[in-house]
Amino acid sequence: MMEASTTAALPHPLAQLSRDEFIKARDIVVNLYGPDASLYFRSIYLNEPKRAELVGFLQVEHAGTLSETTPRPPRQAMVDYDFITSDEQRYTRTVVDVVSGDVVSNESVERGSQPYFSVDEILLFQDACVESDLFKDAMAEFTLPENFNVTIDPWPYGGPDVEEGIPPRYMQGLVFATDASKNNPDSNHYGYPIPIIPVMDLATKQVIRVDRLVTGGSQDGLAPEPQTDTPKKLFQNSKPAEYVPELIDGPLRADLKPLNIIQPEGASFIAHPDGLIEWQKWRLRLGFTPREGAVLHDVCYDNRPILYRLSYSELTVPYADPRPPFHRKQAFDFGDGGMGRASNDLELGCDCLGAIHYVDSYLAATDGSPTPAKSVICLHEQDNGILWKHTNFRTSRAVVTRMREFVVQFIVTLANYEYIFAYKLDLAGGISIETRMTGIVSVVGIDEGASSSYGTTVSPGVLAQNHQHIFAVRIDPAMDSYASGDTQIVVEESVGQSMHPRTNPTGNLYEVQRQTVNKATWMDAKPRLNRLIKLENANKKNAISGRPIGYRLVPQATQMLLAHERSMVAARARFAQHHVWVTGYRDGELWAAGEFTNQSREEKGGVADMVKRGDWFTDEGRVRNGTMPGDVVDTDGTRQDEVARRSSPVVWAVFGMTHNPRVEDWPVMPVETHQMHLRPVDFFTANPALDVPSTKNTTSVLLSCCGNTDLETKPSVQEDPASHLQGSGPDIDAQMAGAKTDAEVDS
Amino acid sequence: MMEASTTAALPHPLAQLSRDEFIKARDIVVNLYGPDASLYFRSIYLNEPKRAELVGFLQVEHAGTLSETTPRPPRQAMVDYDFITSDEQRYTRTVVDVVSGDVVSNESVERGSQPYFSVDEILLFQDACVESDLFKDAMAEFTLPENFNVTIDPWPYGGPDVEEGIPPRYMQGLVFATDASKNNPDSNHYGYPIPIIPVMDLATKQVIRVDRLVTGGSQDGLAPEPQTDTPKKLFQNSKPAEYVPELIDGPLRADLKPLNIIQPEGASFIAHPDGLIEWQKWRLRLGFTPREGAVLHDVCYDNRPILYRLSYSELTVPYADPRPPFHRKQAFDFGDGGMGRASNDLELGCDCLGAIHYVDSYLAATDGSPTPAKSVICLHEQDNGILWKHTNFRTSRAVVTRMREFVVQFIVTLANYEYIFAYKLDLAGGISIETRMTGIVSVVGIDEGASSSYGTTVSPGVLAQNHQHIFAVRIDPAMDSYASGDTQIVVEESVGQSMHPRTNPTGNLYEVQRQTVNKATWMDAKPRLNRLIKLENANKKNAISGRPIGYRLVPQATQMLLAHERSMVAARARFAQHHVWVTGYRDGELWAAGEFTNQSREEKGGVADMVKRGDWFTDEGRVRNGTMPGDVVDTDGTRQDEVARRSSPVVWAVFGMTHNPRVEDWPVMPVETHQMHLRPVDFFTANPALDVPSTKNTTSVLLSCCGNTDLETKPSVQEDPASHLQGSGPDIDAQMAGAKTDAEVDS
Repeated sequence: MMEASTTAALPHPLAQLSRDEFIKARDIVVNLYGPDASLYFRSIYLNEPKRAELVGFLQVEHAGTLSETTPRPPRQAMVDYDFITSDEQRYTRTVVDVVSGDVVSNESVERGSQPYFSVDEILLFQDACVESDLFKDAMAEFTLPENFNVTIDPWPYGGPDVEEGIPPRYMQGLVFATDASKNNPDSNHYGYPIPIIPVMDLATKQVIRVDRLVTGGSQDGLAPEPQTDTPKKLFQNSKPAEYVPELIDGPLRADLKPLNIIQPEGASFIAHPDGLIEWQKWRLRLGFTPREGAVLHDVCYDNRPILYRLSYSELTVPYADPRPPFHRKQAFDFGDGGMGRASNDLELGCDCLGAIHYVDSYLAATDGSPTPAKSVICLHEQDNGILWKHTNFRTSRAVVTRMREFVVQFIVTLANYEYIFAYKLDLAGGISIETRMTGIVSVVGIDEGASSSYGTTVSPGVLAQNHQHIFAVRIDPAMDSYASGDTQIVVEESVGQSMHPRTNPTGNLYEVQRQTVNKATWMDAKPRLNRLIKLENANKKNAISGRPIGYRLVPQATQMLLAHERSMVAARARFAQHHVWVTGYRDGELWAAGEFTNQSREEKGGVADMVKRGDWFTDEGRVRNGTMPGDVVDTDGTRQDEVARRSSPVVWAVFGMTHNPRVEDWPVMPVETHQMHLRPVDFFTANPALDVPSTKNTTSVLLSCCGNTDLETKPSVQEDPASHLQGSGPDIDAQMAGAKTDAEVDS
Repeated sequence: MMEASTTAALPHPLAQLSRDEFIKARDIVVNLYGPDASLYFRSIYLNEPKRAELVGFLQVEHAGTLSETTPRPPRQAMVDYDFITSDEQRYTRTVVDVVSGDVVSNESVERGSQPYFSVDEILLFQDACVESDLFKDAMAEFTLPENFNVTIDPWPYGGPDVEEGIPPRYMQGLVFATDASKNNPDSNHYGYPIPIIPVMDLATKQVIRVDRLVTGGSQDGLAPEPQTDTPKKLFQNSKPAEYVPELIDGPLRADLKPLNIIQPEGASFIAHPDGLIEWQKWRLRLGFTPREGAVLHDVCYDNRPILYRLSYSELTVPYADPRPPFHRKQAFDFGDGGMGRASNDLELGCDCLGAIHYVDSYLAATDGSPTPAKSVICLHEQDNGILWKHTNFRTSRAVVTRMREFVVQFIVTLANYEYIFAYKLDLAGGISIETRMTGIVSVVGIDEGASSSYGTTVSPGVLAQNHQHIFAVRIDPAMDSYASGDTQIVVEESVGQSMHPRTNPTGNLYEVQRQTVNKATWMDAKPRLNRLIKLENANKKNAISGRPIGYRLVPQATQMLLAHERSMVAARARFAQHHVWVTGYRDGELWAAGEFTNQSREEKGGVADMVKRGDWFTDEGRVRNGTMPGDVVDTDGTRQDEVARRSSPVVWAVFGMTHNPRVEDWPVMPVETHQMHLRPVDFFTANPALDVPSTKNTTSVLLSCCGNTDLETKPSVQEDPASHLQGSGPDIDAQMAGAKTDAEVDS
C-alpha cells in the first residue's frame, strides 16, 4: 500500500474516522484499563474539532493555500463505553488523540444518567424476556391461537415515576405475536398485540416486573381489569396486517408503468472519499455520526460559507394515552437510540432513483471493533419541476429552467417506525430540510367492541394510540463569514398599520419590522405576522439593496407538545414547547433535549438550559442580561458551559406532527412529509440561478389522447427522442375533429 | 366524417364545448341581435349543469348503466359579450342551449360592475396610450438614453377612489423603456421603469389622466416632487435586467448533466378526448374555463366520489406602498383577467418531463369565433420519492414503494408575473394542490441613492414593492355520496388537558375534539390546536374504526390580508381575511371575491356575503340561524341566491404569501412553492397503497466515489441496466481501502 507522506494526504479535520483510526482509538482505551478489564463499547466516532481551532483551517482551505505548515486541529476520537466492575456498569466517554495516541479526557456520567441503547442491548432483550418466570406467568393469562409465537419490541423505559427513586437501567418491551403458520419471518406481528409490558433491568438481564395493560375502551377507566382464572383468548377476531407483497390479500396493482430516471452522463456532483462534496457552486463536508446520522459541515456557495454545521438534533414521540404505564411511552429517538446506529442499508433502485452514490460508515461492535455500516447515506440529484419561468406576452417567447436538487438522504428504522431524512440543496441557493414519516404505527390491544378516544381502531383488536412527533433541527450559521460576532439573528415581521392621513391615507401600507436577537431566547412561529428568522451577517451589506446579507428561515407553525406543563413528559422535552430557540454556541453542544434523554425525568443541558445560561450576542444583550434570572456571568465555581458569555448564535428549529392515526395508516403508513426551507435573502446580487440553461429536454415524449396506445404500437418513439422535438403539442384541429367523431352528438 | 348517432357519442355533460358547439352558441347570440348589432365577445364556454340535474346522471354513469333513456342535463353555453350602442357598451351574458338553439337567459350587469379584460383590450392599450397628447406631455418630462423605447404594461385600475364617483371602464398602465440597441424583442424592459401611470377610458380609448409617481425614498413623503422645467434624465446608473440566455451577462453553467425521465411503456393514465381521465383507481373529468384554467370535476377513487368540483377561485395581489396611486395596485387575477385566458401554450421538454399529454381548448375572439388555445394543460406522472417503507430489523428485509403522482398542470402569465398551478393525485388517495410563483416582480422607479421601506431596491433605480398574494381554492366535496345532506364539515382539534387524578394523572393526555359546522361560517387556521377541517360523510362509518368516512384538509397558517380593515383594498377582498370559509352550495357560485372584481370598491357576492346569507347544514344550524343578523330565511322579495336554506357545504381554503422582495428575485424570481393537501381519514379500510408493487427500479445506477468518472469511462453501464442489479452498494472494504490510500495519514 502506498505510503501517504504529504500533507495533502492528511485526513480533513471533518472526515469520518478511517478504519485504522477507529481501531487505534479503541486500542488506546483498551490499553488504558489493561487486558483484564471488562469494557462494553457503545460508539467510536470523530470528536469534531473545536470551532475556534477549525475556523482558521477552513479559511486557509477556502483560500486555496493549504500547506504542510497550515495549523490543524487535533485529530481525535470519542469512545463511548461502559466500564464494568462487580459493583457497577459505568458509562464512560474517553477522548483520544488518534495521531499521538494520547488520552485527552476521560469522564464518567453521574449516576442516574443513562446512555443510549446499543444494538446489542436491543437484540438481547427478547430472549432474556421469554426465559423469565415473571414473563411466563404473565403470558399464562392468555391463550394464543395455534402457531402464534411471541415477538417483543424493545422500547426505552421513558421517564420513571417519582416513586421509583433512581432506578437501574431499564428497558421495557411491547409484546406481540407472530403467526408462524405463515411460515414467513416477515409476517407482521404488529397486528397481534398482547396486553403486557415486561420491564427488564439491563444490568442483571432480569425481568423485574410485567405491567398489565388496559384493553377496554376509554370509558372503562385507567386501571387494568381484575384478573380472572380463565386465560383470555386473544386474537379471536383479528385480521392479518401483512405488508410484504407475498402475504398481502389480493394482487398487486399491475398498471403502474415504469418511470425511469436516466442520467446518461452521470451525476453532476462529485463526492470525494474524504467527505467533500461539490455540486453546482455548492461545497460541503458530509459527516455521519452514530446519534445524528448524516450531518452537513461547512456548507458554502461560491466559496462563501453559509452554515457551519446542519443536523437533526432530537425527536421526541410522546403518546397521549393516560392509562398507566402508557405515559412512559415517550421515545427520544436520537438520545435513546441514535439515528446513525439505526440507519438503513440503502438499496439501489428502491430508496433513490437515478445515478446514486452511497456513503458508508463504521459503527462500534461491543468489543469496539469497527462494524461496516453500509450505504447509510445516499446522494443523488432530483428534478423538482420548474425553477423559474417567464413568457414575454408580446413575443410569446417562454424561457423555462428546471429545478435540480442535490439530495443527501438517510433512512432509519426504530423497531416499528421509519423516518426518511433529507437535506436538499438547490440551484437557487436554497436549502430544504425534509422529513418523511412512514413505517408501522405503534399499537396496543383493545377489546372487541370497545372504542377509545385515546386512539384509532385500525384493525379489529388493534388500537393505534394518539401521539406526537416533535423534531429539533440544529442550524449553526456562518453567514458569509466564519468570524464569531459576524452572524446575527433577526426576527422580521410584516405588520399592518393604522390608517393615518399623512403616512397611510388609504390603509394599504404594511411595515416590515426587524428586531435583532440580542441574547439567548426562544420564540414561536407567528404566521399571522409572517414572522421570519433571518440569519444575517451584521457587518456585510448587499451591494444592491444596501441591506444585510442573509438567509431566512420560516419557522414552522406546527402544534407543539400537548402534555401538561407539569407532566414528566413535558419536563423531559422542554425543547418541544417552542418553535425556535436561539442559543450561544458551545463546542459539542448539539442536543436539544440534552445529552442523556434515556430514562430522564427532565431535560438537562437542553435548549431551555442553554437559554437560561444567558449568553448574549450584542452589547445590548449583555446589558439586558444583567437583570435576567439565571444570569451567572463571571461567577466562580460554575462549570464553564454554564457561564454566560458573548457567543455566536445557534438556531434550533422545532416542528411537530400530531398523529391521531387514520385507518389508512395501517398496516404500514403512507408518508407524511414535512419541509423546512432556508433561502437566501440579499445574500446574492441577483437570482443565482439566472445562469441555469433553459435547455429543452429532448427525451420527453408526446402522448396523444387516450393514454399510451400510441406508444405501445410505436416502441421506436422512446428510442429516437430527437424525432419528437418538432411538434410541441398535438395538432388541435385533428384532435378536435377526433373528439367530434368519438364523443359528440350530431346536432 | 362518421355520423355519430348513438347515445354513447353524446358529449358528456362536463365535456368542454366542441368547436361546433362553440360556433353554434356564438351564432345564436349574433342572431338574437341581428346582423347590424355591434357585439364584442369576451368568452364562450360550457354552462356547467346544475348540480341537482347532473347528480342523477353521474350516479347512473358510475353504476355503468348509461343508456339512451338516461336523463341528461341540458347542454348549454355561456356567452359573455358587450352589446355596444351609441350610448353604452353593455356587458351581457346569454346562456344558450346548444342542442335546441334556445336562449335560456339573457342578463346585463348593473352599471358600475366591470367585467374582466379581454386579450384585445390588453393589446390595444399601448398604442392608444403612446398616441395620446397627455401621455406625450408626461413623457416630455423625461429624457431617456438613446435607443430606448416606451413599453407599457396594462394593469387593472384597482378600486377607484371614493371621490371618483362611478367612473367609466378604466385601464391603467405601468410604463417602462426597452433598450432597442439590444436588437432583441425579448430584452427585459422591467429594468427601466418610467415614473408615470396613464389611465385610459377603454370605451373612448382616450387617456384621461397621467399620474406622476413618487421616486424618492420612503422619507420623502407620499406626494410627487414638484415638476422642474428641465427633463429628468432617467436610467443614468441602471443595469440591464436580462433573463433570456443570449442576453445575460456571463456564460450559462455548463456542468448540469442531463436528467431524463423515461417511461418506456408510456404513461399509466388514460386521457379520453371528452375530458375523462383514469389513473390508478382515480377517475375524474377535466374541465378548462376562461376564468379558472383547469378544473377537476367528479373526482372519484375506486368509483367512490370524493370531490364534486375542485378549482382555484381567486387571487388578489395588493401592494403595500402607501404613495398614491400605488394603493390602486391591487390585481384580482381571476376576476380582472382570467387564468384560462392567460394560460401558456406549454412546451414539451420544458414545463413537464417524461411522457406528456397536452389538453387544448378554445377561447373566444372578439367576433366570437373559436380561437385555439393550444396545450393549455399538461398531464403527466412524477416520481415523488418514497411512498411507504418498512424494514424488519430482525430479518433486515426492507419493503419500499415509490410515490407516483398524476399531475394536472397549467401555467399563466399575467404581464410580468407567472403562476404555475398543479393538482396532484397520488397512490395513497391524496390530493395535493400546488402553487408556484415565478416571473418578474412588479417594480417602480426609485431615485439613485434613495432607499425605501416600501420595498427592496433590486437593481439601481428599481424598487420592487412589498405586496401579498392571497389565493382562494374552492373545494366542493361529495364525500362518498352525491346526495345533498350526506357531506358534513367538521372541525377537529387536538387539545391538551388539565391534570386530573382520575382522568389524566400523569398529564400526557390530549383530547381530539370535534365540532360539526352547522351553518355557513368562516374560521382561521390554528396550528397550535392542530386544527383540521374534515370533509365527512355524515351517514357512513368506516367499518374498522367506526368513525365517519372522510378526508381532511390542514388549513394553511399563512399571513392573511394586511391592509387596514377600513381600507378599500380590504373591502374588495373580504375573502382574504380568513383561512377557511364554509358556505352553502349554489349552482354557479364559484367566486371567492364575487364575480365582478374589476374596478370594484367592495367584495360583492363573495364568500363573506355567502356566509352572511346564513345557509345551514344541520337542524341545529337552522335553529341557531334564527338569531343571526343577516338571516333572510323565507323572506319575500329577496333574490333566490340571497335566501338562506339548507345546503350542501362548500369549503374555500385561503392561503397567502407575503412577498417582501429579495434581491434574488431579480430579474426573474426562483419559484416560491406552496402546497395544500387533502388526505383520506378513515375513507378506506386500510392503506390504499398497500398493493403498490415494491419493484426495484432496474435502471438506477451506482456511482463510485469521486463523481462520475466511472460512468464516463464505462458508458455501457447505462445501456445494460440489468447488470447493476447484483450489487446494492459499493464494496465497503474496497472503498475504505481506497479512502485510506487517498486521504489518510500513515500514523
